[in-house]
Formats: sequence, structure tokens, C-alpha cells
Amino acid sequence: MSPLVRECVRKMSAYTPGEQPSDLRAVKLNTNENPYPPSPAVMRALREIGPDMLRRYPDPDCKRLCARIAVLHRCRPEQVFIGNGSDEILALCSRAFVEDGGRIAYFDPSYSLYPVLARIRNVKELALKLGPDFVPPDTPRAAGAGLFFMTNPNAPTGILYPRARVAAFCRRFKGVVVIDEAYVDFARESCMGLALKLKNAIVLRTLSKSYSLAGLRVGYAVGPRPLIAALNKIKDSYNVDRISQVLAEAAIGDQAWMRANARRIAATRGRLARSLAGLGFLVCPSQANFLFVKPSAMKAEAIYRQLRARDILVRYFARPLTRDFLRISIGTDEQAGRLVKAIASIQGKKT
Amino acid sequence: MSPLVRECVRKMSAYTPGEQPSDLRAVKLNTNENPYPPSPAVMRALREIGPDMLRRYPDPDCKRLCARIAVLHRCRPEQVFIGNGSDEILALCSRAFVEDGGRIAYFDPSYSLYPVLARIRNVKELALKLGPDFVPPDTPRAAGAGLFFMTNPNAPTGILYPRARVAAFCRRFKGVVVIDEAYVDFARESCMGLALKLKNAIVLRTLSKSYSLAGLRVGYAVGPRPLIAALNKIKDSYNVDRISQVLAEAAIGDQAWMRANARRIAATRGRLARSLAGLGFLVCPSQANFLFVKPSAMKAEAIYRQLRARDILVRYFARPLTRDFLRISIGTDEQAGRLVKAIASIQGKKT
Repeated sequence: MSPLVRECVRKMSAYTPGEQPSDLRAVKLNTNENPYPPSPAVMRALREIGPDMLRRYPDPDCKRLCARIAVLHRCRPEQVFIGNGSDEILALCSRAFVEDGGRIAYFDPSYSLYPVLARIRNVKELALKLGPDFVPPDTPRAAGAGLFFMTNPNAPTGILYPRARVAAFCRRFKGVVVIDEAYVDFARESCMGLALKLKNAIVLRTLSKSYSLAGLRVGYAVGPRPLIAALNKIKDSYNVDRISQVLAEAAIGDQAWMRANARRIAATRGRLARSLAGLGFLVCPSQANFLFVKPSAMKAEAIYRQLRARDILVRYFARPLTRDFLRISIGTDEQAGRLVKAIASIQGKKT
Repeated sequence: MSPLVRECVRKMSAYTPGEQPSDLRAVKLNTNENPYPPSPAVMRALREIGPDMLRRYPDPDCKRLCARIAVLHRCRPEQVFIGNGSDEILALCSRAFVEDGGRIAYFDPSYSLYPVLARIRNVKELALKLGPDFVPPDTPRAAGAGLFFMTNPNAPTGILYPRARVAAFCRRFKGVVVIDEAYVDFARESCMGLALKLKNAIVLRTLSKSYSLAGLRVGYAVGPRPLIAALNKIKDSYNVDRISQVLAEAAIGDQAWMRANARRIAATRGRLARSLAGLGFLVCPSQANFLFVKPSAMKAEAIYRQLRARDILVRYFARPLTRDFLRISIGTDEQAGRLVKAIASIQGKKT
């Protein structure tokens, strides 16, 4: 790479997002998208976008959207920050809450973006390895880190770190804890209360999963005012475009739609877990819209490849900690059925 | 601010964007928006967005949009990078091309975001003061800087730095030169050729001005492959949402619409410049969609405030170098007429 490029950028590898095929025929269970469409209120709002709304700059502060989210979580608008996807908020946190020469901690495995963010920020990574059951320890040791990124329920495992333990961890930790609740609408409990009570906890939410709006890029953070103010200071002024602001408002205004889809997905998750267990898979107890599963009859990578050949996409992470597993997004019951049938056929051929 | 916030963030002030009133009655000449609507092709593309496009993640690489822009500028798609507004690309450049402990250089006055980006990046600023005519020197001295941000035509002055001189500067400068051509569609020449020829020059363009899409947030960079590859490594994976990608494609596909509006704006600019000169204003020679003007009969700030009281918004920068001037976006002929009449009335009352 050119010597004009900063050294830490030359040395690092980019984050690898899941495959996004332009071919829409595939059964796409690889990037945790929602199989159900967004609320009809979103489509109505979209139809009302006129040329003048495109011509003019959006509200740089997303005031209406912040106000609506504040009502939802019973907090002040000043405790809410809107990002161009929660990925943008994670990156902003790495710049707002870690000094040069500091370090960023996270569980491993977890969202594989975290080490990439540490490398871009040119600070040290502190990866706390989880045991073979992927359950976080009672007292994680992350001394010296200014920032802890915690996906909860965790990805790619789907395992929920109970709120009481997260609370105990936050109280002990000296830096900022960012609890990424991307999947929490599919879970039995949330840590939102901690972000509203503690001085060092921020909760992230996204509209990409439970609200079926991955195409849009809207995430938000809730947390103590001084931390939210820091994010506002360093964000790009107009980081969220006008269409996204308007559509996100409509989506958040229709909680019933989101809840109904989340319930359907949780029900499919239960059925799929039982089917895969029946095919000899170890299934991690998931509170998310995906399952992390370990086949016993064949190697995970072989199943991944053979599913791909049959136009069924799931996610495979080749790292040592995760290479025996597949991550399967929860689609419709029909998609789950096709997946189970395909796996049974693949395993049948093998034996 | 909380001690949990990084020191450089605690100390800095945020960038102040121009006012974005929700009241649409005002004559809004303060943030360089285009007074004409975006291409009808954009509105048609918007009407075709369906729920499945929102439900799924967008293409993280914006391949179709990159390909279209590559055709426009006769380069390879690998020489094109798409950003969530060109502001995002400026911020990415500050992270890709400056080492910790390095410095970022720029002319002063110029886009007031540049010093803010240096402070967020926690590196030194090197502000090269322009003389009272705001014309850049023949040989700017920016030794030791890894990155030079150059708005051309410059903001808030509108003055074009001739391509031959920019080329000579780039050849001498050891770091990366980012030439922000946000306003170039209103100018008589562009530096795009330099980004396609030199190893250290990147040209930025935006759809916010000439394409009438400020509400959308799409900017792009063209430059040498290794520099574009560095931006790709450190961007948020899904930094440009699907609607923006599709609408940007439609806008760029209709060059005739953009060119016609740019010509109308340049014509209004000429008429407004003559009218303001007739009212005793010094008018900087502008190649952008705004005028930077110095009143002689009254203080600039007083005119700014009295225009505001009449629902006419222009931009005023209170810093020493610029406090005698107003920056006025070029609207329609009708808006320019209202502005001139209002200023004549304000000055008339004064004398």
C-alpha cells in the first residue's frame, strides 16, 4: 500500500461484511435480516417524500426522531443520539471514549468489527476469550480499557448476558461500557435501564433487525447526557439523511408491527432449534434472530459450502473459536423448512 | 464534561452547521442549497423503492454507483469511493492519511470543518492565512503536513484556485492533497484530471449542491487506487444506504438536468453580483453557488440580523478574517430580487 497511507491502516485488514448477493432468489440467512417487511407506516412515509425534502439539508440534530425515541424509552431527547447505522455509533465511541494509547476491550467471540475499530483507532485490543460454552465470566477482567464493547445478546452466539451481571460489570468497570442491543427485541430482557441510570453505560439499538430496515442505516444510542454530548460533538454534522429520519420515525411509531414480527421470529427460532437438534446439531441457547449451531455429523464448513451450492446462504466464521459452527439467521417458517430439508439431504448423502 | 470523555473531545468545540429552520417560508440563502428540484429521474427512482429493498442490507461497496461515476469521469470503479456526504469522506481522509502526531493543513478562511476534523483526530492544525484578497499564494508552505484540505472553488469566498497552480502545489507537497470540489459544477474548470494523474491528489464531489440532493447525503471521491483502497478499509461497511445509492445513480444519470440548473444559477450569480456592487458592496469573484460580499454602508452583522428579521437567511461568520462579509447562496432570480430589495431598504433606513 502507498506510503501516503497511515501505517496502522496499511497494516490492518478491513471488516468483512456478510455476502449481499444482488440475486434475490437465494434463501438469505447470512446477515440477520428480518424476513418480514417494514411497517406499512414506513412505506406511507416514503411515498410522501417530495423534491423539496431532498433539495434541502436535513435537520442535523434529528430532533423529531430523538424526541420520539425519548418517549419510547422514557428519557430526555438529550439522552438520545442517532447514527448512520449503529456501526457509525460504535466507531464514534472509539473516538470519543478512548485516549490515544488506550485500549478497547470486548468478549471473543463477539461482533468481529470490534478489533477492526481498535486498529483504525490505533489503540490496543483487549479480547477476553470466552470458554467453550461462550458464556461470559462472572467477573470479566478488563482493567486499563477505556471502552468495553459488549453485544448483548451476543453475536454470533445469541447468548444473553443477564442484566444483573451486566450491571455488576458496569459498576466495576472504570471506562465506558457500550452495550450493543442490536438483537434485544428478540430477547427476554434488556439493559436499557442501565443506560438511564449509570454514568458509564450506553445502550445501542438498530432499526436493521427487528424493524426490518437494514437497507436504511439507522441506529441509536441512549445514555448519560455527557456521553451523548460527546458523540454529538464529533459526528459528521448531517450524518443521518432526511429520508432515513422520516422513515425511522414512522417505524418506531409502529411498535405493534415490530413486536408481532419479533414474536413470529422467536417462534420460528424455537422450531428451528428443535429441528436442528434432531439432526444432531449442538444449538447455543439463542435470544437473538439467529442460531449458532455445531453439526456433529459433518464439518461446519462443508455444510456451509453445500448449502451455498443450493442457494441457501448462512454465515461461517473460519476463526479457531468459531470454525466448528454455523450462524443461521431466522427467516420465515418456510425458509427454515427448506434449510432443514437441505441439511438433512446433505447429511444423508454423507452417511 | 465527563472525565470518561477523551481529553481532545472535551476541549474542542463542535462544527456549527448553518441554520436549518423547519419553517419553509424563509428565503433560505444560508447553506448553499440548490433552489431547483432534483432531476425527475430521482423522483421516479424514489417511487420504485419497495419494502424488500428496505428490509435487506444495501451493497456495502456501492458497485453500481461507482461504475456509473467511473463512466462519468472516465476512470476505473476502483478509483471511486462513495461517502455518506463528502463530510464523511473528509473525516475518513483525516484517519487514513495522517499519522498520530502529524498535522493537517488548509487555507484560512476555508471550510470551517477542517480545524474541527484536526481536533477530533488529535493532530496539529496548520492554517495558512490568506491575504485580504483571499487569493491563495503562488507557493503555499505546508511542510510537515501529511494532509492538505483544499476547497476549490474556496468557501466561503467562492474564489477559484487555478488548476495549473493546484497542480504545481500537489507536485511539491509530500502528503495527500484532498481537493474538495463541492462547488465545481458552477465553475469554469476542475481539477479532476489531477486526481486521475497524480499519486497524491483526491478530488471530492457532492450531490448536495449542483444535483439538488442535500437532503440525501451522498458525496464521492476520485483518486489513485491505493488511496481509495485505504478509505474502503476504514469506512463503516454499510456507510451509504440503499435509497441513497439508487437515487444518486438516477441523479448522476441525468447530467443535462444538473448542467441546466448550474447554468441558471451561474446566470443569477452574475446578476446578483452586479446588483450588490450597485449597492456599494465589494463582491469577491465567485465561481461557486454563493457570493462572499462586503457591505460598505453598514456592518455586515447588522445587515445579517436585519435580513433575518425579514425572514431572509444568509450566512455570517463572526471570525476576524470574515466578520466584515456575508456569504449569500444563489437562489432563484426571484429570491435574489427580494434580497436586493430588502438590503436596499435596510441601507436606506440607515442613511
